[in-house]
Amino acid sequence: MVVLPPSARAVLEGPNLAHVVTLDPDGGPQVSCVWVGLDGDEVVFGSLGPWRKLRNLQRDPRVGVSIESPETNDIGMRQYLVLQGTARVEPGGGPELLQELARVYLGPDVKFPPMDDPPPGSIVRITVDRISGVGPWAE
Amino acid sequence: MVVLPPSARAVLEGPNLAHVVTLDPDGGPQVSCVWVGLDGDEVVFGSLGPWRKLRNLQRDPRVGVSIESPETNDIGMRQYLVLQGTARVEPGGGPELLQELARVYLGPDVKFPPMDDPPPGSIVRITVDRISGVGPWAE
Repeated sequence: MVVLPPSARAVLEGPNLAHVVTLDPDGGPQVSCVWVGLDGDEVVFGSLGPWRKLRNLQRDPRVGVSIESPETNDIGMRQYLVLQGTARVEPGGGPELLQELARVYLGPDVKFPPMDDPPPGSIVRITVDRISGVGPWAE
Repeated sequence: MVVLPPSARAVLEGPNLAHVVTLDPDGGPQVSCVWVGLDGDEVVFGSLGPWRKLRNLQRDPRVGVSIESPETNDIGMRQYLVLQGTARVEPGGGPELLQELARVYLGPDVKFPPMDDPPPGSIVRITVDRISGVGPWAE
């Protein structure tokens, strides 16, 4: 497990969309974007459904995450963070985590998920094995 | 091959960073961000080095690309485009394509690559097999 430096934590705690890669049954890459947050040194995201990425992670826990920083370098090239990690899917807690993340991504007063009786969903926890990308976290 | 709708072309032609996923020799996901453009219905990016993603694509041409749109939906959730495709790596032309893309991503007067005698590099051409994500291209 890698301890995340403060520069990487700041990107992961901000309203920056995480591009999450899982592996399909045929080994091909499957990509979707999610809201993420931190729980200690684990990256977490919430889900309401039995989506393809969750089924993929239950079969093969290898995961890639990339996320853009608002920062650019001196000629205007955007910094970005890449994590390679191992995921586990925990049942339940999806709506509560999504509500917490919605405050970061959409605004402090947003109700999310918007429905009154959401399914329990799940929480995905990612242990980070390697940090790369372009930014202070990769130097 | 999929014909890209105008909404997807607009995202791919703008200054939006593309998150490119290739497959490592062990089958794990490898992610990096690049500038992309279009050549007809192919997505193209330039490279100066024999980087890991190019070696990966020469061994397994399956590629995933995700890219954020500047647009959000009515509650502020960002749209994003996901492409699954097949890549081929063409030797040469890297600096010329990077210079063209730098005009979009950095500004019309930027010299890029910054060095005077860059290596020939390569161009990666992606044939799109499937479009998904969240936005008008996925409806």
